[in-house]
Amino acid sequence: MGIARTRHTPDQTHPQTLIIIHALSNRSRGSNHVTQEYHPREKDIIPGGSSLMARAILFRTRASASFNYFQAWARGQSTIPLAQPVVELSAAERLEPRSPVVVTSEIPGPRSKELAARLGQYQNTDAVHFFVDYERSQGNYVVDVDGNCLLDIFTQIASLPLGYNHPRLVKAMQKPENMATVINRPALGSYPPVDYVERLQNSLLSVAPPGLRQVQTMGCGSCSVENGMKAINMAYQRRIRGPVPYTEEELQSCLVNRTPGSPKLSFLSFKNGFHGRTMGALSLTHAKWYVKLDFPAVDWPIAPFPQLRYPLEEFVRENHAEEQRCLEEVRDLIDTWDKRGEPVSGICIEPIQGDGGDNHASAGFFQGLQDICDETGVYLMFDEVQTGGGVSGKYWAHEHFSLRHAPHVVAFSKRMLSGGFYFADELRPKEGYRIFNTWTGDPTRLVLLEQVIKEVREEGLMANAELVGRYMLDSLKMLQCEFPGLVKNARGLGTLCAVDIRDAKTRAEVLRRMRNRGVNLGMCGVSGIRLRPSLLFKRRHVDIFLDRLRTTLAELK
Amino acid sequence: MGIARTRHTPDQTHPQTLIIIHALSNRSRGSNHVTQEYHPREKDIIPGGSSLMARAILFRTRASASFNYFQAWARGQSTIPLAQPVVELSAAERLEPRSPVVVTSEIPGPRSKELAARLGQYQNTDAVHFFVDYERSQGNYVVDVDGNCLLDIFTQIASLPLGYNHPRLVKAMQKPENMATVINRPALGSYPPVDYVERLQNSLLSVAPPGLRQVQTMGCGSCSVENGMKAINMAYQRRIRGPVPYTEEELQSCLVNRTPGSPKLSFLSFKNGFHGRTMGALSLTHAKWYVKLDFPAVDWPIAPFPQLRYPLEEFVRENHAEEQRCLEEVRDLIDTWDKRGEPVSGICIEPIQGDGGDNHASAGFFQGLQDICDETGVYLMFDEVQTGGGVSGKYWAHEHFSLRHAPHVVAFSKRMLSGGFYFADELRPKEGYRIFNTWTGDPTRLVLLEQVIKEVREEGLMANAELVGRYMLDSLKMLQCEFPGLVKNARGLGTLCAVDIRDAKTRAEVLRRMRNRGVNLGMCGVSGIRLRPSLLFKRRHVDIFLDRLRTTLAELK
Repeated sequence: MGIARTRHTPDQTHPQTLIIIHALSNRSRGSNHVTQEYHPREKDIIPGGSSLMARAILFRTRASASFNYFQAWARGQSTIPLAQPVVELSAAERLEPRSPVVVTSEIPGPRSKELAARLGQYQNTDAVHFFVDYERSQGNYVVDVDGNCLLDIFTQIASLPLGYNHPRLVKAMQKPENMATVINRPALGSYPPVDYVERLQNSLLSVAPPGLRQVQTMGCGSCSVENGMKAINMAYQRRIRGPVPYTEEELQSCLVNRTPGSPKLSFLSFKNGFHGRTMGALSLTHAKWYVKLDFPAVDWPIAPFPQLRYPLEEFVRENHAEEQRCLEEVRDLIDTWDKRGEPVSGICIEPIQGDGGDNHASAGFFQGLQDICDETGVYLMFDEVQTGGGVSGKYWAHEHFSLRHAPHVVAFSKRMLSGGFYFADELRPKEGYRIFNTWTGDPTRLVLLEQVIKEVREEGLMANAELVGRYMLDSLKMLQCEFPGLVKNARGLGTLCAVDIRDAKTRAEVLRRMRNRGVNLGMCGVSGIRLRPSLLFKRRHVDIFLDRLRTTLAELK
Repeated sequence: MGIARTRHTPDQTHPQTLIIIHALSNRSRGSNHVTQEYHPREKDIIPGGSSLMARAILFRTRASASFNYFQAWARGQSTIPLAQPVVELSAAERLEPRSPVVVTSEIPGPRSKELAARLGQYQNTDAVHFFVDYERSQGNYVVDVDGNCLLDIFTQIASLPLGYNHPRLVKAMQKPENMATVINRPALGSYPPVDYVERLQNSLLSVAPPGLRQVQTMGCGSCSVENGMKAINMAYQRRIRGPVPYTEEELQSCLVNRTPGSPKLSFLSFKNGFHGRTMGALSLTHAKWYVKLDFPAVDWPIAPFPQLRYPLEEFVRENHAEEQRCLEEVRDLIDTWDKRGEPVSGICIEPIQGDGGDNHASAGFFQGLQDICDETGVYLMFDEVQTGGGVSGKYWAHEHFSLRHAPHVVAFSKRMLSGGFYFADELRPKEGYRIFNTWTGDPTRLVLLEQVIKEVREEGLMANAELVGRYMLDSLKMLQCEFPGLVKNARGLGTLCAVDIRDAKTRAEVLRRMRNRGVNLGMCGVSGIRLRPSLLFKRRHVDIFLDRLRTTLAELK
């Protein structure tokens, strides 16, 4: 509960109001005053806010019955209108809170902890950060079940393109015809819906990477990578086999996992790569022990990914040599595995390694990699699960590399809402049911993606990602100068930015304090902070983030 | 378009009306008269149906603009009310068509073919049967884009528990608070929604297999099986390792797919099994060449699944011997692979093999398998992706086997709407992020599943599945007597019924003709017909199916 006084602006549909919230936790009354600006959602506004008597806002929460520890009162009579924005705000932005509000002494707060304990009866909950009130979250702000409102720069592990409750998505899902899509989930490969072609054209195909026009939807990132590999392996075997029918030996041996039907092909991946958690994708993944330990994996070649030194302009020659070294190793591995009788059919690589540490490489490196593929007849797959969707400033991060031709596979998921992969015509299966499963995706996600893509176009959100990303990166570099030794290796492409913190322990402390200051962040690599804001992230959000990060770093210096 | 006259029953909200539709295709006018009963949805009813002039029904279809080949006229003035049902119909049943309507000379019809050609620009479409108008489909009836209304006994590859557009599901999704669930798909493992515990309790946990109370949601069946394997492998290694910390060697070697971190464990599966299409699940799959060919797979032990002879009562001794032979082989394989240094950590088996041929085994076989597991310390996983959800007459098919204790893992998907797996307490991961991915499922599916489970309870749909299944199986056995040599091996548990047809070619012809008669069926094994109706399937639906199957078989005798 909170108490507030409001003054409506002339635009009565979106009253811009600032509420002074003073939160006191029952558990630590008096010790955790948090006074914050809060730009409330419409439903939180109390009519009659101009009366002398301050009235309680009943935060609409379905958990309100047990919401008894959180009591807040407004202090004083002053009502401060929001500053008029310099640029016009979009419909989505007008709904968004103005800044974070933290009302518990620690996040996760008591209600999150209580829910985690209850969930803990049924599964391990060590990865739970906090429980979310998705109904109340808005734009770049996630609201937790304790009433904390956090600026979210991790956006559900980089999977919400337009933040929370974007009005355009709400509107799309209110259409009755889309109800049937949610309720009757089809087996897309056998019984596609009447509007499926149109949906594909308006969503995935409208943003297909240049040069690719085949697409297959999937349920998640792991399945996308796995099936991209399968498409590559089929094409590879087809090339070797030539235009002859399958032999009975092939058809029978494949059923029991034996050659020649199940060929001994290998797939090349990179150290610190992350491509998913099912056995094939997991065998390409080399980022974190807890993703890998105790799980059998296939012995396939693993090349080094360039470890660039920063700032880039100071290490041009060293970084070039490092990339050449990695390319040489790729070439060697392909040769070695060919001689072993387990030829490399494909290479899987992220344009920017995400979970493994936000590791970048130059366009020249990727061009060199494509050259090697072309010379050796190895197929090239980009895993754009984390980098796709416009956040790099282009729809696909590999578009920054000026490749000579399209890669053979581009796998996606997360911000694309649906999993899946684009693929070259050459990779198209010759028979039905080859790339298939019961659902092969979910058309509900395409309904939403279509709206996301329209919003990206109409609001120029890719250009925004480029500009905001540059501002964010420049600001991080300044911070690096302010806190030498504590912050390093500021790097980024669009809003896909990251910095490294002194060590893993300090990183954990930075993340904890930032969360308690109302900013939700992700991590990557050994000591990296991974920034994955929505496409609605603007300069003002960067400023809030940096302001609080600066305070936090000053404490830890 | 169709023309009809209606007479409203006293219940004006659900007028029970029979429409005589006479369909003429423009393309083959006069040659494909189809006169069918059709119990229309409310929106298809024309007010003023009692006037002398018959009026056109404009079937509401978003494709109506190009829907120009299908013209149907009602003949005559007669209006035939439906027979009063003996039992009271549920809300869902009152909305359902009365029987199939076929209006094109062949299914897929021209509009389906046109859409398939368009989709064919972007992906292989050989697995597409027809395009569906999901908005107009209802209950057990699927309506295709050509206006054909088929009795659906395959239900999106066994994944629709309550058929199409069940009013209870429609109502659930109309609630505004569920909108936020659809739009803001969470990273469930890190930021679960406020109502997640309650949702789990009301859905998956309320139907947990006896003895299991740990549950993890997943996106699809393959991911469920893969992660069930991972939970087993973790527990297996934990048992071997004992209560000591991980060594640095383990933590480093797992990152590059090497022992000891990535152990050489194997997983035992069965011939003709089907468990999914990602590399781990695919290595357990041995059903169809097109699922396997050209894809590398892991060399793991594969045991024979009992091949029972029918009718069971005539081959009691032979079948018992067959099952003992298979169990002996399982025992031998565990021993052999243990000696190879690649011990079997787990066994994965379907209670009834689905895609591989609807192969059954006795309770005694599964009891024997559990005994072997207990003796050898191997974990047992049931893949109930196809058999779960109440269609066997119990919520989980393995409940029919009277096992001495719960299996270690029960994987689910399809009719449960969400993927995932139940698991024994012993298998619970000790750290966070071990069983994890970005989405780990989709809470929207739990919102729907909660309603499905309520409907199953309130309407006694498991008892219905048992009764209707028995009626269906008895009827199939009668058909078997009528068409000896053509139909054989009638078998079933609940509505999970199947028969084999003389050969694959005849089976294809049966399926084609049945579809053209308005009945959509699935296949399995070499020549099997796989029946996978919804839980709303009743005796009257069985009668329609059997009537048309009898006609079809008579033509092919």
